[in-house]
Amino acid sequence: MRTKSVLPIIGRILMMIAISMVAPILCAYYYGEKEIVIFFISMVLTFITGYLLSKIRENDDGLRLIEGLAVVSLGWAIITAFGALPFYLTGTLGYIDAYFETMSGFTTTGASVINNVEILPKSILFWRAFIQWIGGMGIIVLAIAVLPALSVGGMQMFAAESPGPKLDKLKPQMRETAKLLYGVYLIFTAAQVILLMIGGMNLFDSTCHTFTTLATGGFSTKNASIGYYNSAYIDAVVIVFMFLSGANFMLHYNLLRGKFNYFKDREFMFYLAVVMGAILLMTLDLTYNVYGNIIDSFRYASFQVTSIITTTGFATANFDIFPSHSRIILIVLMFIGGCAGSTGGAIKNIRVLIILKYLYREIYQYVHPNAILSVKVGEETIQEDILKDVMAFFIGYIIIFVVATAIVAAYGIDMITAISSVAATQGNVGPGLGLVGPTTTYAALPVFVKVVLTFCMWVGRLEIFTVMVLFIPDFWKE
Amino acid sequence: MRTKSVLPIIGRILMMIAISMVAPILCAYYYGEKEIVIFFISMVLTFITGYLLSKIRENDDGLRLIEGLAVVSLGWAIITAFGALPFYLTGTLGYIDAYFETMSGFTTTGASVINNVEILPKSILFWRAFIQWIGGMGIIVLAIAVLPALSVGGMQMFAAESPGPKLDKLKPQMRETAKLLYGVYLIFTAAQVILLMIGGMNLFDSTCHTFTTLATGGFSTKNASIGYYNSAYIDAVVIVFMFLSGANFMLHYNLLRGKFNYFKDREFMFYLAVVMGAILLMTLDLTYNVYGNIIDSFRYASFQVTSIITTTGFATANFDIFPSHSRIILIVLMFIGGCAGSTGGAIKNIRVLIILKYLYREIYQYVHPNAILSVKVGEETIQEDILKDVMAFFIGYIIIFVVATAIVAAYGIDMITAISSVAATQGNVGPGLGLVGPTTTYAALPVFVKVVLTFCMWVGRLEIFTVMVLFIPDFWKE
Repeated sequence: MRTKSVLPIIGRILMMIAISMVAPILCAYYYGEKEIVIFFISMVLTFITGYLLSKIRENDDGLRLIEGLAVVSLGWAIITAFGALPFYLTGTLGYIDAYFETMSGFTTTGASVINNVEILPKSILFWRAFIQWIGGMGIIVLAIAVLPALSVGGMQMFAAESPGPKLDKLKPQMRETAKLLYGVYLIFTAAQVILLMIGGMNLFDSTCHTFTTLATGGFSTKNASIGYYNSAYIDAVVIVFMFLSGANFMLHYNLLRGKFNYFKDREFMFYLAVVMGAILLMTLDLTYNVYGNIIDSFRYASFQVTSIITTTGFATANFDIFPSHSRIILIVLMFIGGCAGSTGGAIKNIRVLIILKYLYREIYQYVHPNAILSVKVGEETIQEDILKDVMAFFIGYIIIFVVATAIVAAYGIDMITAISSVAATQGNVGPGLGLVGPTTTYAALPVFVKVVLTFCMWVGRLEIFTVMVLFIPDFWKE
Repeated sequence: MRTKSVLPIIGRILMMIAISMVAPILCAYYYGEKEIVIFFISMVLTFITGYLLSKIRENDDGLRLIEGLAVVSLGWAIITAFGALPFYLTGTLGYIDAYFETMSGFTTTGASVINNVEILPKSILFWRAFIQWIGGMGIIVLAIAVLPALSVGGMQMFAAESPGPKLDKLKPQMRETAKLLYGVYLIFTAAQVILLMIGGMNLFDSTCHTFTTLATGGFSTKNASIGYYNSAYIDAVVIVFMFLSGANFMLHYNLLRGKFNYFKDREFMFYLAVVMGAILLMTLDLTYNVYGNIIDSFRYASFQVTSIITTTGFATANFDIFPSHSRIILIVLMFIGGCAGSTGGAIKNIRVLIILKYLYREIYQYVHPNAILSVKVGEETIQEDILKDVMAFFIGYIIIFVVATAIVAAYGIDMITAISSVAATQGNVGPGLGLVGPTTTYAALPVFVKVVLTFCMWVGRLEIFTVMVLFIPDFWKE
């Protein structure tokens, strides 16, 4: 990896992050908050660093694969370091906590170390929601354009369908793709803010919740999350936008161009089936064992299921006290996650679908040993190379989960908290069960556990391999 | 699948099981127990059924792949049905419980539904241990000769090293291989019985515990398992034989022929490293958090680690009350299991090793995108097809685990019990945590949960695919 090819790009990204700090500055100005100074200082520090990095003389022969990975993985870690400044400099959090919270923001995880958000200045709450919104934008472009070009975890299978470019012409086409997708993102943002305000939520809270819904982030301005409003209408609006944000944004983009392709997309249909199946099972469980009536059970099951599978992490009920069947369903959903090309995290529906089809083929092959069978998703045959990449991703995901869980448990954390905190951070969900359930936060965990979970958010968001290459010594050679 | 090719073979296996019932009959005669009648009736029923099946006129053109799988999977289920007769007819257990206990025996799992074994007649205790010993024999031959020939779950990679035959000449070579391996098994049996008796254990208990050690089964004649003896010497003997039984029996066979190949075998070295690493971590955890001294901690850690990774399931401590770090290590070990060609269950060390090497290659490939890299275990290059089979096995294993856990939890079982009971039955370990911890049994679980866990033992023991083919409708066509 040639540092000179990587740092200038990271510098430019930092400058964009600095510019985005204008938004919380305006917010602090509007509400007359003294935090305006802190945001200004953070902006200047971030901008200057970015500017200096951007002036490093670049190589002319473009980015190599490995440098593309470095931009993504190191870039993400570095912007988090600067995005954390407002939390740290305002005294809201210590630096490690601030880094945790900001990583949780940019990765659209939603795991929080702030016990009482309702006492925070509006500008801090705004920034907290805004970094999720920015993170969501970054992820859509990563997922649809950048990672497929870098062949990460079998994502190259989308290169054919999406307007995703090859690595050598990444920049111009990426800009084009990004513009179109940002159009969708902005339209959805406007629509959800309006719909939430109709439900009686004020402009500030509507904006913040919309930011964190579309990013499938899940930071809330209320300690009780969406449950605070106790409104079936608001629940329904949030469910719809969570569900849409967990779907591939290319589908929404096609819709805007007049093509309704949802029901032709196999991943979308699988995603829909998993959501409906999980809601059904959980509704039954909650009807018999918690609420005693099917209406409430359906309402809370559909919210919690959609929130967790899309990896948003909002809550309208304390699902930590749900029966174990419902909680295991939620943990499984934490691993499945959203669709490819969405802001959702975790393994992704398309990979789960491909793996299930592959396993069926493997078993079917025993019955017909001489048949030449291919794995198809819709009309498309999945190449054997991609099958291997997808399986390697799945297994890598599981192994990181197991190792991280063992480390967390080594700090004396109980098993359910250990398992669910890792599943919820690696899958970019947010709240887990036990000590990190929906009514509590990650604040009380030991410092080193927070560091491990920060790593989980980072490695999970960047599709495992993008980060794991950093551990190959050869990576660091020029 | 042609039933006519399958049933006569199953019939012959049933006749062998009937003959093996002579052993408990002799035992009942020696101790003057009235159960002798029951064993005699069971033997006659089993023999007659086997004889009638064996008389079905066979096709002359040999077994096809699919019929090989049918013999193994259906055969296992059918011999369990007859092996359960003594438990059922003596009134020890209801039929479903008897089937559970017998499946647990033949699969060398060791999960029990008998709360107080110490009141059972000696002949029943003997039969319970003896079916594990028989199961262990069956598994070694399956693992070294049959499953590789059937290409199950990447097991064909051992075909090169072992004297394992191809499918068309399965019968004669299998007999030869089996004889040699049974020689090892008998020598180990004699050695362990003698060593346990030197430690003060009586002949009956020594024999039963030896049977269930070598089979990595774990049924005990005492409610407190090996912990009953509270003897460091007996612990040590059992640890050594559990460890040996979890290793590839081909290595032991080579040792008898004067070739000491243990340290040249990569899987064995990996297995040794995992065992030592787990003992180290657990000793630290127990020293700080349970026993307060390193001697006891090492003693109990080494026993529990060896017992669980080899999927034996004996206990000398109530590991259910260990700290969560130790318990998570045990759960991870439940998934790793023994070596290929051992009596141990679960995923197997060689598969875990291959998967870790494969993931490293995947990540390394990003750094050297043009290099042609192969996955090697020792000198041997693992073919890409086998890599895929191994990954498919791993993922299939995980998916069955997840689905079964969700079903168990649906019956209101707490999460830790649900997770560990499935891990412990699918991995053929035996005891889990929570309600099914080492001081309790599976007796209290709902009937349907026992059925699910019986399935888990069966599918886990037969390397997943051997059983999963039964769910392909085409399988049942002639």
